[in-house]
Amino acid sequence: MAKHSLALSRVYRLLEPGPVVLVSTAWRGHTDIMAMSWHMMMEFEPPLLGCIISARNHTFGLLETSKECVINIPTVDLAKKVVACGNTSGRKIDKFKTFDLTPVASARVKAPRIEECYANLECKVTDARMVRKYNMFVLEVVKAWIDPSIRQPRTLHHAGNGVFVVAGERIKLSSKMK
Amino acid sequence: MAKHSLALSRVYRLLEPGPVVLVSTAWRGHTDIMAMSWHMMMEFEPPLLGCIISARNHTFGLLETSKECVINIPTVDLAKKVVACGNTSGRKIDKFKTFDLTPVASARVKAPRIEECYANLECKVTDARMVRKYNMFVLEVVKAWIDPSIRQPRTLHHAGNGVFVVAGERIKLSSKMK
Repeated sequence: MAKHSLALSRVYRLLEPGPVVLVSTAWRGHTDIMAMSWHMMMEFEPPLLGCIISARNHTFGLLETSKECVINIPTVDLAKKVVACGNTSGRKIDKFKTFDLTPVASARVKAPRIEECYANLECKVTDARMVRKYNMFVLEVVKAWIDPSIRQPRTLHHAGNGVFVVAGERIKLSSKMK
Repeated sequence: MAKHSLALSRVYRLLEPGPVVLVSTAWRGHTDIMAMSWHMMMEFEPPLLGCIISARNHTFGLLETSKECVINIPTVDLAKKVVACGNTSGRKIDKFKTFDLTPVASARVKAPRIEECYANLECKVTDARMVRKYNMFVLEVVKAWIDPSIRQPRTLHHAGNGVFVVAGERIKLSSKMK
């Protein structure tokens, strides 16, 4: 393969993981939704995940204060609403109302689940020590919901600059990976 | 949507990000390759990424000692080799030789790049403080390589239990996301 050097400023386009998720938060009756794709699993069970949320986002403050959120996983049919959530600020608008998304009460946290997303993970912040240096929160998933009728979710994976890759064919290999 | 409760032990299947990457390491002439999918971007530039590597993996020790690695990004044509790397241990075999992968000298680190992967990110460990608690390494990408002829890389995304989702169609939306 003839490889070129790639500008370090573009590295994120290779690794940015997806699925793009919608983070919903709530504090004193005020809610917010943000689009996020910088997250990773950290432990199988109880499931821990790490995520990076810029302090510029309204969600940052709501998450830091309430220490709870829901990670909602959308599929491609919600792509326009996902982008709309990403392009706006919850400081100025109610994203549930503006983008016609349905808040549903969660079982274990005060933040609402987004009904239209095929899966919802209710989370509590369990470690905020990396927030100051990296804007990184460690979340524990305390309750998870999934629509079992969605067998092959066509999730969105951000590839930079507004380009999203949609999850495609599934292949089965004899992996020993869990 | 009629949602069911999902066992917390299965949450990783939703969020496990991909692309699955191959981590190559080297120490005193000994090399290793491991398959990894628990990683996330942490900063745009210089690019920082976080990753979780179990201490049971041979790579863990090589990375902790050498403080360098290459993150190699494979496409679906390498799927069998990716799984083979994931199912074996570098303690027992030379994975480059056994799986016919080509090591190429890196520019900034001693770990070799894997020629057959369409992109290679040369990395240095910049923060090992989360290793003890989370097996988490913070890596800085110091040099990145890409094959520009691969316009729409069909990367692999692990969905649990040996099922991999292949990156599918690409859609462009008017996102303000970087």
